[in-house]
Amino acid sequence: MAEQVRVVVDAMGGDNAPAEPVRAAVEAVTERQDIKVILTGKQEVIDKELAKYSGYPKNQIQVVNASQVIETAEPPVFAIRKKKDSSIVVGLNMVKKQEADAFVSSGSTGAVLVGGQVLVGRSKGVERPPLAPLIPTTKGVSLLIDCGANVDARPSHLVQFAKMGSIYMENVVGIKNPKVAIVNNGAEEEKGNALVKETFPLLKECKSINFIGSIEARDIPAGYADVVVCEAFVGNVILKLYEGVGSALVQKIKEGMMTSTRSKIGALLVKPALKETLKSFDATEYGGAPLLGLKGLVVKTHGSAKAIEIKHGIFQCVQFKQEKINEKIAERILEDQEVLKSGAE
Amino acid sequence: MAEQVRVVVDAMGGDNAPAEPVRAAVEAVTERQDIKVILTGKQEVIDKELAKYSGYPKNQIQVVNASQVIETAEPPVFAIRKKKDSSIVVGLNMVKKQEADAFVSSGSTGAVLVGGQVLVGRSKGVERPPLAPLIPTTKGVSLLIDCGANVDARPSHLVQFAKMGSIYMENVVGIKNPKVAIVNNGAEEEKGNALVKETFPLLKECKSINFIGSIEARDIPAGYADVVVCEAFVGNVILKLYEGVGSALVQKIKEGMMTSTRSKIGALLVKPALKETLKSFDATEYGGAPLLGLKGLVVKTHGSAKAIEIKHGIFQCVQFKQEKINEKIAERILEDQEVLKSGAE
Repeated sequence: MAEQVRVVVDAMGGDNAPAEPVRAAVEAVTERQDIKVILTGKQEVIDKELAKYSGYPKNQIQVVNASQVIETAEPPVFAIRKKKDSSIVVGLNMVKKQEADAFVSSGSTGAVLVGGQVLVGRSKGVERPPLAPLIPTTKGVSLLIDCGANVDARPSHLVQFAKMGSIYMENVVGIKNPKVAIVNNGAEEEKGNALVKETFPLLKECKSINFIGSIEARDIPAGYADVVVCEAFVGNVILKLYEGVGSALVQKIKEGMMTSTRSKIGALLVKPALKETLKSFDATEYGGAPLLGLKGLVVKTHGSAKAIEIKHGIFQCVQFKQEKINEKIAERILEDQEVLKSGAE
Repeated sequence: MAEQVRVVVDAMGGDNAPAEPVRAAVEAVTERQDIKVILTGKQEVIDKELAKYSGYPKNQIQVVNASQVIETAEPPVFAIRKKKDSSIVVGLNMVKKQEADAFVSSGSTGAVLVGGQVLVGRSKGVERPPLAPLIPTTKGVSLLIDCGANVDARPSHLVQFAKMGSIYMENVVGIKNPKVAIVNNGAEEEKGNALVKETFPLLKECKSINFIGSIEARDIPAGYADVVVCEAFVGNVILKLYEGVGSALVQKIKEGMMTSTRSKIGALLVKPALKETLKSFDATEYGGAPLLGLKGLVVKTHGSAKAIEIKHGIFQCVQFKQEKINEKIAERILEDQEVLKSGAE
């Protein structure tokens, strides 16, 4: 049997805590033997949830008590500093001390991002750890990198994002030689804001990635690129607009189907097939977003995540650990710095 | 009868020229007496198109010959300078010389934007003329301002965009006291990149607009704000992603409906109602995007525009002229500069 990957799951994080994170833990260890889940949070609350289940391998789940909860509205930096016994801080510290390999949370995005950087710490050479969700396309999925809290990135950050994203898509998602593109306001090379114009030639020079040039936002959902590189403010707009346009359109379609008797009957007939299709275009199905470039893995699942998403997040951690993604990222980043250094000498 | 509004239509611009611009001209003057359309482009080509129609008021259409055509791929600044006898330059010069009130084109966006600024010229006090398309929402439409070619805007530009957009939505679209919001990566006031953080308090101080704070991209399609203020790079991403997610989802839905016999029958029944609904969420239905803050009105319709969109563009020009939008914008901008000046003294 392969060595067990130890994944901390924040049992207090998200709109559906503790029920959904605990269910995810139970389902994950029931399905796979190579996982150990550590649930952090209020012991009695978690125990009560766990008592609802039976027949799962109990030795693969451990509960670590944490008496505090960080709320979504709390200022992240302050919360991480003050709530030392919160499920997030306790979990991240376990990763820091190498008592666990990864941390999954549906709690405060800000606290997870800040805590990941401050407590777990960046890999050597990584300037900024990007948050990189998988987004659905008509072809499959693409990695959108960065959607994190650090806006106004510099060109060197974007180049690192491109490299980390490339390694992730190749090794975790299994796409050979993934196509990397930078989000731009036109397809021509002379287009772009100051940041993109400065970054474009740097990406073009990168030998370790398969850079295909600019991508217009229109072409992102069609899956033209596997790794979609952008600054976090733009990434946030893309991620949230994906969701917004999707749900507005679905609402419109539902209304449209209810306009006549004829279409109402039709709606009943297409409903099951349609539901399946729309699910495949739902960003929440893909197991959360990894925070890349840290010494351990931190995965942020949606605040509204159900057990299935959290479970996928846990599985992602296993793949991540077994494929040694962090080591690969650290290696690639350091390699390039050596090249830069020797070039400067 | 009201005074005729003189609208130049670029008969050579767009994928469907000259057929669709000419058809739009014929339909516009057939529907309304208060419009005169001036078609610019190759005389013999336009005459041949016009010969296909009869029974329209011929005295409301004039053809002005222009021997050159600016192609979409040409560098805009160069094209405007060199092709002095192109349909775009000839048309914009007519607006400049006040021989026409407005110019509508489906041709090169870059050339229309550059030409609008260079040839027609900015209104006094306007720092940057924004391109502001109407985008569909579940409630109706919102104005997305700016989607132009000038990226990396300054806070003062965004404040002017908010004011111009507000005047437009109130007077052209008819929304009383329109809600103005700035695109941000979170709803909280402390969120934002450097530009948004600097702009937010300036908008808050603006007494002439109904500023409601930040808007997350997720809430744009739900119509939370009537005027959605952003820098052009972000605006471009929003506009194009709208289109991209929309068409990806529609493709997915069509595929989904074809998966079983049951759903295929259902698809036949819902098709007419669905088509109608999706049309209402199609950005190309709304008559193009005005380039605001110029001495005359310039409207950019989609490259793929059909006659109906161009016709709506023409009608928009009439509304714009009759409501004296340019005068209102110039007044508001100058007013504020007086206030600033007296404050500084």
